[in-house]
Amino acid sequence: MKQIEVKKDILSAHEMIANENRELFKKNGTFVLNLMSSPGAGKTTLLERTIELLKDTFTLGVIEGDIATSYDAERISAHGVKAVQINTGGACHLDSTMIKNALADLSGDSLDVIIIENVGNLVCPAEFNLGEDAKAMILSVTEGEDKPFKYPLMFRIAKVLIINKVDLLPYIDCSVDRMVRDAKSLNSDLKIFEISCTKKTGLNPWKEWLKEEINKKKTLLPDE
Amino acid sequence: MKQIEVKKDILSAHEMIANENRELFKKNGTFVLNLMSSPGAGKTTLLERTIELLKDTFTLGVIEGDIATSYDAERISAHGVKAVQINTGGACHLDSTMIKNALADLSGDSLDVIIIENVGNLVCPAEFNLGEDAKAMILSVTEGEDKPFKYPLMFRIAKVLIINKVDLLPYIDCSVDRMVRDAKSLNSDLKIFEISCTKKTGLNPWKEWLKEEINKKKTLLPDE
Repeated sequence: MKQIEVKKDILSAHEMIANENRELFKKNGTFVLNLMSSPGAGKTTLLERTIELLKDTFTLGVIEGDIATSYDAERISAHGVKAVQINTGGACHLDSTMIKNALADLSGDSLDVIIIENVGNLVCPAEFNLGEDAKAMILSVTEGEDKPFKYPLMFRIAKVLIINKVDLLPYIDCSVDRMVRDAKSLNSDLKIFEISCTKKTGLNPWKEWLKEEINKKKTLLPDE
Repeated sequence: MKQIEVKKDILSAHEMIANENRELFKKNGTFVLNLMSSPGAGKTTLLERTIELLKDTFTLGVIEGDIATSYDAERISAHGVKAVQINTGGACHLDSTMIKNALADLSGDSLDVIIIENVGNLVCPAEFNLGEDAKAMILSVTEGEDKPFKYPLMFRIAKVLIINKVDLLPYIDCSVDRMVRDAKSLNSDLKIFEISCTKKTGLNPWKEWLKEEINKKKTLLPDE
């Protein structure tokens, strides 16, 4: 009982800070995406591709979440985009307070877009709101078609599912049809993109969706 | 402070039950393996291959951990081996109490080997002892060479690292040499096997290691 109460207290504190972040993003007209997946599904590579697609049109910033290392922030910085690395030091997910603290380092007030790369984990990050506009998840085809029903929460709370590494389909046994069908049965509104980040295929619909969402957020800005 | 104390209480209760499980496995001469990885790294397929390799020599049982579904227990049962499915219903890891409860259903007293397939997660399961003899982890080459330093705890507590899906190396950009070097620098005692579970290559050294460990455990049985 004591444990349950403490868990509730922690979650509502997180939710409060997430709402503060959300208000700030609204005030600034910044579209914020929370990118989640298993380790190695291709979050950082998708980020690199996305930066290439958007950086001439929009101002971007990235928050990188990892238990340890600054590998990912270094990869992003190499593309000329500011990236702030959060090392959770063991924690299996990002939370809204970590994001709030990282925003100070990002000088996020003037950005059109902030993309948050969560810790590689298909379970725990799904439970924590960060104040984002949309949660996007990646499932790579090498992980197998049976994942939607095995990790249902992530598929339920995501707005977007990116099916990545489709270039490897000829060499593995994976039914994308079943993946899509099962994911849709958990979340009929899920927007799905089939992409190969390494071969740079299927990226255009993803770019168009992002542009639309970013512009939508900007038009909601209050008049000065 | 309250939160930290509660966390400590929970962890020590788990440790107590893990010790009870350990004593039971010792009394029965059962070798117990805790198999962990990211979602889709190939735990269940490795289990299927391992059952094929061992089932004529040893009596086996399997405990399957998943947030939802009984897909994996069904796959294992098809090989004529008893499998008990634990659905954690959201929890991101197995704990020692779940194992204790599953043992009753497994009729584990007479088994030479129990393999526990943990929830797909490279982070949280590493924190929980189940009473096992060895923790084995799988890292698939499609997840990328940078994972050891990004998820260091899992590599530190594992006795065995299985590098899986090596048949896909010609189609991706991954340095197994760096993977091995980084993993060894975190844990110099780590026993490493390079395997393709789908193409059934590299399985023999894994089988020999398991046979040795199983027989070692049996020779420790007290005289009747």
